[in-house]
Amino acid sequence: MAPSSKLFAVVAGVGPGTGAAVARRFGQQYPVALLARNPDNYEPYVKEINDAGGKAIGISTDLSDASSIKSAFQRIETEFGSAGCAAAVFNASGRFLRKSILDLSEEEFTAGYQVSGKGAFLFSQAVLPLLLKTAGDQAAQYPPTLIFTGATASVKSNALMSSFSTAKYAMRALSQSIAREFAPKGVHVAHAIIDGVIDIPRTKEWLKDMPPEAKISAEGIADSYWNLHTQPKTTFTNEIDIRPMLEKW
Amino acid sequence: MAPSSKLFAVVAGVGPGTGAAVARRFGQQYPVALLARNPDNYEPYVKEINDAGGKAIGISTDLSDASSIKSAFQRIETEFGSAGCAAAVFNASGRFLRKSILDLSEEEFTAGYQVSGKGAFLFSQAVLPLLLKTAGDQAAQYPPTLIFTGATASVKSNALMSSFSTAKYAMRALSQSIAREFAPKGVHVAHAIIDGVIDIPRTKEWLKDMPPEAKISAEGIADSYWNLHTQPKTTFTNEIDIRPMLEKW
Amino acid sequence: MAPSSKLFAVVAGVGPGTGAAVARRFGQQYPVALLARNPDNYEPYVKEINDAGGKAIGISTDLSDASSIKSAFQRIETEFGSAGCAAAVFNASGRFLRKSILDLSEEEFTAGYQVSGKGAFLFSQAVLPLLLKTAGDQAAQYPPTLIFTGATASVKSNALMSSFSTAKYAMRALSQSIAREFAPKGVHVAHAIIDGVIDIPRTKEWLKDMPPEAKISAEGIADSYWNLHTQPKTTFTNEIDIRPMLEKW
Amino acid sequence: MAPSSKLFAVVAGVGPGTGAAVARRFGQQYPVALLARNPDNYEPYVKEINDAGGKAIGISTDLSDASSIKSAFQRIETEFGSAGCAAAVFNASGRFLRKSILDLSEEEFTAGYQVSGKGAFLFSQAVLPLLLKTAGDQAAQYPPTLIFTGATASVKSNALMSSFSTAKYAMRALSQSIAREFAPKGVHVAHAIIDGVIDIPRTKEWLKDMPPEAKISAEGIADSYWNLHTQPKTTFTNEIDIRPMLEKW
Repeated sequence: MAPSSKLFAVVAGVGPGTGAAVARRFGQQYPVALLARNPDNYEPYVKEINDAGGKAIGISTDLSDASSIKSAFQRIETEFGSAGCAAAVFNASGRFLRKSILDLSEEEFTAGYQVSGKGAFLFSQAVLPLLLKTAGDQAAQYPPTLIFTGATASVKSNALMSSFSTAKYAMRALSQSIAREFAPKGVHVAHAIIDGVIDIPRTKEWLKDMPPEAKISAEGIADSYWNLHTQPKTTFTNEIDIRPMLEKW
Repeated sequence: MAPSSKLFAVVAGVGPGTGAAVARRFGQQYPVALLARNPDNYEPYVKEINDAGGKAIGISTDLSDASSIKSAFQRIETEFGSAGCAAAVFNASGRFLRKSILDLSEEEFTAGYQVSGKGAFLFSQAVLPLLLKTAGDQAAQYPPTLIFTGATASVKSNALMSSFSTAKYAMRALSQSIAREFAPKGVHVAHAIIDGVIDIPRTKEWLKDMPPEAKISAEGIADSYWNLHTQPKTTFTNEIDIRPMLEKW
Repeated sequence: MAPSSKLFAVVAGVGPGTGAAVARRFGQQYPVALLARNPDNYEPYVKEINDAGGKAIGISTDLSDASSIKSAFQRIETEFGSAGCAAAVFNASGRFLRKSILDLSEEEFTAGYQVSGKGAFLFSQAVLPLLLKTAGDQAAQYPPTLIFTGATASVKSNALMSSFSTAKYAMRALSQSIAREFAPKGVHVAHAIIDGVIDIPRTKEWLKDMPPEAKISAEGIADSYWNLHTQPKTTFTNEIDIRPMLEKW
Repeated sequence: MAPSSKLFAVVAGVGPGTGAAVARRFGQQYPVALLARNPDNYEPYVKEINDAGGKAIGISTDLSDASSIKSAFQRIETEFGSAGCAAAVFNASGRFLRKSILDLSEEEFTAGYQVSGKGAFLFSQAVLPLLLKTAGDQAAQYPPTLIFTGATASVKSNALMSSFSTAKYAMRALSQSIAREFAPKGVHVAHAIIDGVIDIPRTKEWLKDMPPEAKISAEGIADSYWNLHTQPKTTFTNEIDIRPMLEKW
């Protein structure tokens, strides 16, 4: 499919794995803006998508910081003008420390929330007006879609995981509140519970005695997100879980 | 796509609405067996699919009865020989009565379970060996898939709804247990929480002052089921919810 | 406290463990009717309570059978006359088999539901009019209470556990539906998720290398049920979980 | 019961309603430290408990601020010396604004988390060592207990409620993580879902056409918390819901 010139997609939290795969998948249909703090995390995919005949821009963004997010969306407006947003994926997480309640510093405990709670809110606040624009656009092929990447810790909070799980529970609550507020206005909001190890370079050595079906493929996640995006107004899925065949749950 | 001659799909609980839409959707790819007690409920879709160049058979089946289900699968074997099953959808529900606990007869209370509990178990027991056959078939394009159609009442049990909700909670438990047992063997099991009124002839007068986005489209459900079916072994979704844009939840 | 002569309690599913402990606890305040299929399962506690100055009767009851439950309540009426029921505890489970979906017979699969689904419904239908009588009794010290004993399998359905979990999910749905229907009429309905091994003679050898806090005490459960019973109309708890200190969850 | 001189209780977030009722209830057994930002919110209860022969101190504390919480626990140590903590109740919430995602300022959105997320963490971190001290005290009558006051919004996130629900979801995750980490060490952690309007002076005009059973009594909550506290190591409840008889849910 040729990229549509009228709408764009934005992926917040790009890096090897889900972010890159989602960028590639949505980049087949839409120009994409890829946000990550470190340009190393998006540059390869920006190049790859542009080389393949699509259109991608990368924007260095601190997703826990209001002014950085504001700058990113100003850059998006400069690039894409008055275009509406077709799809936005919030895929970022804060730093993750496995520590006892007794050993976490305040800064460590709140690090997850800075991104998954506050950052997801700030991103949503910036992107929702652009999604609403698409909701009112009769030419848009699919309802505008906002997807949050959750985790096992979004619904189960284990020992030593409080920093991560409090942030992910908060993001799930945010997703549900936005879904309920904006569905009647035509925006499709979905939360994905990614339950398992994603198969990326960093996890190469994990579960290495297991077959490939013990890990989640980032491409599989991207395809599932794309399928969520294509659901019509009569059929919104607000939550899915995703796990590999060999996951215990 | 031309129907594959090697694998088939089966839809239990066919009638105007989700069953018909799922039959059509999976019938684009596979020969399909359509099960319903009353032939009037599948005959139009059998004809439609065959007329369109696909292959469909209808089998009159009481989905609360072991011998009737056994006969149906014998007929399936006669028709499709040693073919594996690519996808099975259990879409049946028992009779549904909105009544006080104090007013339900034993027969009325258990009517839901006869289909959604016992029937779903019997159907699963019959179809799982055929799904396992596909799991071992390198030529199969997608992992074999077993999908259960749930409802709001699968996760919320309101007053006067005990017959329906006890049956639907039980079916959700069945789905989860089968998912956990058979995922490691390559079978993808998913449960769909259909939350809202489906737009079918019988519900034409419901919500008539509301726009079309107040009801779920059966085609949308069928597409979502198809998308579940296409997920690879690395990316199984075991539960989705589906509701229309204007649903309160 | 001396047993009140005006109200009684009933415990369905009595045996060594939760049933006996609940009988003893509620027997301190009320005359109690103890139901179990096998008289061996209630006779020791009937004797114990009567010897201690309380009042208890035992009634042999098949809790999966409507006529047996009907007979039990006729016997209760004979014994307690027009007294209202202060508290009813449904503590029975069907036979429990850990088996693959492929290996369960229809009778084995449905055995759990016969008691936890259908039986719990029939028991509720019989006891609710007697609980409503107490709801209208200004002299009753506590709101009439109906408690269902659930399990881990009421909210998580593992592989090989389908017979048990489908039954327990169904009972949880029943409890929620009754709670919502009868709370406005003054009946307090609660569901208890008992998560762990109860310390009874039959489980003596289980977890024997662990300290006592690895098992649940039946007396602890009974106290928790009593505390639920004493909650006023302004403060109903509809679900609690209970697990021992050393349980993984 | 005479207050024990060896152990104390602490209630964070005291004001008319749950905090005051919990202070009174636990103050019958233990010396109590009452924390609130505004002394007006604890002074009446400090006086009342001391006048009744108990022992209470009030400490002005900003429960979203690490140094303020640290000061409060220094004051507690000064007052109670090396005594262990028998029970701690975190009952505070941040400011609550019902607003669209589009209208919330960053400060407004995060206000809930500052207390219910970060504050609950800081409080837990300060009090857990004192609870662990009690866990090792053979003379303690009950296992040391840490209770968090949640809300409907802890498990359901409605439109316009994102600030409150993200904070409350986060606190529930915190509670579960602490429960799983510290139960094996003998600390009982519980989360209470308070579902409904609490009957306090501020809500006098709410639901005024309804009978008293439409609101939750703060005393009922306090009794339920006390009952949680008395559960033995073999019988920990980690979550309860509480709602009035006439609540829709």
